[in-house]
Amino acid sequence: MDDKRIDLLVHNIGTLITMRGAPGPRKGAAMSDIGAVGRGAVAIRDGLVVAAGPEDEVIAGLEARGTTAASRLDAGGRLAAPGLVDPHTHLVHGGSREHELALKLKGVSYLDILAQGGGILSTVRATRQATEDELYTKAKKSLDTMLLHGVTTAEAKSGYGLTLEDELKQLRVAKRLDASHPVDLVSTFMGAHMVPEEYKGRSRDYVRLVIDEMMPEVKRQGLADYCDVFCEHGVFSVEESEELLAAARAMGFGIKIHADEIEPMGGAQLAGKLGCVSAEHLIAASDEGLEAMRGAGVIAVCLPATSFNLRLTKHARARAMIDRGMAVALSTDYNPGSSPTESIQLVMTLGCLNLGLTPEETMTAVTVNAACAIGKGDVAGTLEPGKLADLVLFDAPNVAYLPYHFGVNHVHAVVKRGKLVVYDGRLVPEGAR
Amino acid sequence: MDDKRIDLLVHNIGTLITMRGAPGPRKGAAMSDIGAVGRGAVAIRDGLVVAAGPEDEVIAGLEARGTTAASRLDAGGRLAAPGLVDPHTHLVHGGSREHELALKLKGVSYLDILAQGGGILSTVRATRQATEDELYTKAKKSLDTMLLHGVTTAEAKSGYGLTLEDELKQLRVAKRLDASHPVDLVSTFMGAHMVPEEYKGRSRDYVRLVIDEMMPEVKRQGLADYCDVFCEHGVFSVEESEELLAAARAMGFGIKIHADEIEPMGGAQLAGKLGCVSAEHLIAASDEGLEAMRGAGVIAVCLPATSFNLRLTKHARARAMIDRGMAVALSTDYNPGSSPTESIQLVMTLGCLNLGLTPEETMTAVTVNAACAIGKGDVAGTLEPGKLADLVLFDAPNVAYLPYHFGVNHVHAVVKRGKLVVYDGRLVPEGAR
Ligand SMILES: [Zn+2]
Ligand SMILES: [Zn+2]
Repeated sequence: MDDKRIDLLVHNIGTLITMRGAPGPRKGAAMSDIGAVGRGAVAIRDGLVVAAGPEDEVIAGLEARGTTAASRLDAGGRLAAPGLVDPHTHLVHGGSREHELALKLKGVSYLDILAQGGGILSTVRATRQATEDELYTKAKKSLDTMLLHGVTTAEAKSGYGLTLEDELKQLRVAKRLDASHPVDLVSTFMGAHMVPEEYKGRSRDYVRLVIDEMMPEVKRQGLADYCDVFCEHGVFSVEESEELLAAARAMGFGIKIHADEIEPMGGAQLAGKLGCVSAEHLIAASDEGLEAMRGAGVIAVCLPATSFNLRLTKHARARAMIDRGMAVALSTDYNPGSSPTESIQLVMTLGCLNLGLTPEETMTAVTVNAACAIGKGDVAGTLEPGKLADLVLFDAPNVAYLPYHFGVNHVHAVVKRGKLVVYDGRLVPEGAR
Repeated sequence: MDDKRIDLLVHNIGTLITMRGAPGPRKGAAMSDIGAVGRGAVAIRDGLVVAAGPEDEVIAGLEARGTTAASRLDAGGRLAAPGLVDPHTHLVHGGSREHELALKLKGVSYLDILAQGGGILSTVRATRQATEDELYTKAKKSLDTMLLHGVTTAEAKSGYGLTLEDELKQLRVAKRLDASHPVDLVSTFMGAHMVPEEYKGRSRDYVRLVIDEMMPEVKRQGLADYCDVFCEHGVFSVEESEELLAAARAMGFGIKIHADEIEPMGGAQLAGKLGCVSAEHLIAASDEGLEAMRGAGVIAVCLPATSFNLRLTKHARARAMIDRGMAVALSTDYNPGSSPTESIQLVMTLGCLNLGLTPEETMTAVTVNAACAIGKGDVAGTLEPGKLADLVLFDAPNVAYLPYHFGVNHVHAVVKRGKLVVYDGRLVPEGAR
């Protein structure tokens, strides 16, 4: 290296999870291989990892090059892992829906709540009514919470605007947050989240609107990297989903699909057929669907916090997916209806308890696999030379402790692109970074 | 009031939950009555509530008495509630058992884990091996976490020592913590948590040891207010439990019972017969058992985090209990085996999702009813003149938001006995209080 400078040395790491390995997603048995190193250190320059490994090797490497670190962060023997990645969130939205909890507990059905103007309709209304600044302020608060829980990269979907202007508004908010907030955001356009009320009975017209007007404008303004579609009975059919995603792909978007959440309608097969980067939910996905995904290398993004909050007893077959050699990622699905939580750590617990993943597999599912599910596998999800210096220190003795000791936040510190952004469990003010 | 001084005025409370009402536990429909006041304030003197109600009334009251507050805390429109009470924890123990998570996920049975020296045996071993200071340091960290999640009063059971000396050691740690930590602790002696290995096949001898040697010494040293027994197949029979609890009662202990967790063996009936202050778990309690409890005014302490973590699909029938006019409390059951969580807020979510309580009922279940379940109903659990000035400010617009927005900590500030002990989500250092 011609530049010998080291900006930051994170040392005295009790156990360092590097997730070192192939650049693609981790499949099958390899999901257990988290590249753990006892007594580790990470050397950082210009926001990138220069070296990550055993402390004595990293320090000997610096000495051999005749350099020392400009600053040091003593990990105090804590567990370190790559910054966590939340690959499926509906981050930007208006309103909250806590009043529906009492209705739900009384046994009022979701369709009845919807008929009363509640459910997703109320979020669409609140999102349309909100100004861009209001959406920004609310989403920023959630993004702060994600960061405090160890997330350094996340995806954010539109899909509560459902008009060209309101979809662009959501995406602009995500863009502003990506620029101003430490967490890196990947934007997904999801105009096909539902058919809005004003298009009731005219879903074809809405599909055409999404394809002919929304997608090209989103593309023109460079507001999203991915397109996503909610393929489900009563939302978009497999045929409509294919039309939407094929059009998106032709325009140069990466493609994703909410598939087989409730019934095995063939969404997983479609994901395989079209070569989606990921398919989401998959609770009811058939063996044929999983096989199609495996064959095409589609990452399965499982959302156990949603199943938990919806009190489902049927869960995505993540264990079977891994055993058949698929790559599984986990995500919060953060949204105001089915999953109002930003805690990827609770999702890790649910990944173990309800999906049967091992602690190591959950770590893979929220780092390298999650990064690959949003096209960030080349820069995030592992701690290796040349990757972003995104790193979390947990107040935990080992990886298993994270899902085991549940419901509380174990993050001690977060380094994002080489800067200390969370310390002692709280945000470091911008001026102090 | 002869002394006009007001030490602290908490004002600008968006919604103030007073839980005002009868001094006993809230039963049946009254559990929904949380005494909510819009735009509230709380006036505090000498660590006690002087007034709690609508802000204009509280301030007019101070003016009428010609006094102003020495200091003020602006709640910023947040939700305020009585300090939360966690009425069932195994706070003091050695070791942690995260390595058992992988075994559990592989399908290794609890009995096999136990046969390998794991399970509760490993916690007993670690607790016996730990010094008093080691136990203190570990428990203090958990107690800090509880406080950060809004708990100002908690119960702490012994029961991992299982020798006279090791039980006393656990109880001394709880006593020291009660004296030194802001959270008030109520101690429960639970020598009858299990039959220790060295008494295998001689449970009668162990029962005699508990009754003849441990209970009198615990009483003599004033180390516990309550006695608790684990009444379950393979642990202590109903007959042994009755013998243990009757002896404890005769010595002047309050009595509690872990009852009907797995099978309906009659623990709930025994709780009613003996007049226990509370019975815990109750997942398998029969109608007759519940009726016996109702008749005797025994509080049902439900532990949904334990069921969640054990992946049980059967839950305590808390909804039915409330509907039949019983008083229900909720608790974390914090312990290193079946419920490694300090988050009473997650328990509130589980109370709604898995037990069918309304958000208001969960609030009652973690305040007044929880306080009554550990004999603190006269001083804690409500915000009324003369009660302890224990108060939590939540970053939440209403009570329903707490269980709704799950998996994250909503506490902004905690006032304990009139002192600000948590602010902006973190502990206030002792010197700064
Ligand atoms: Zn989604
Ligand atoms: Zn217990």
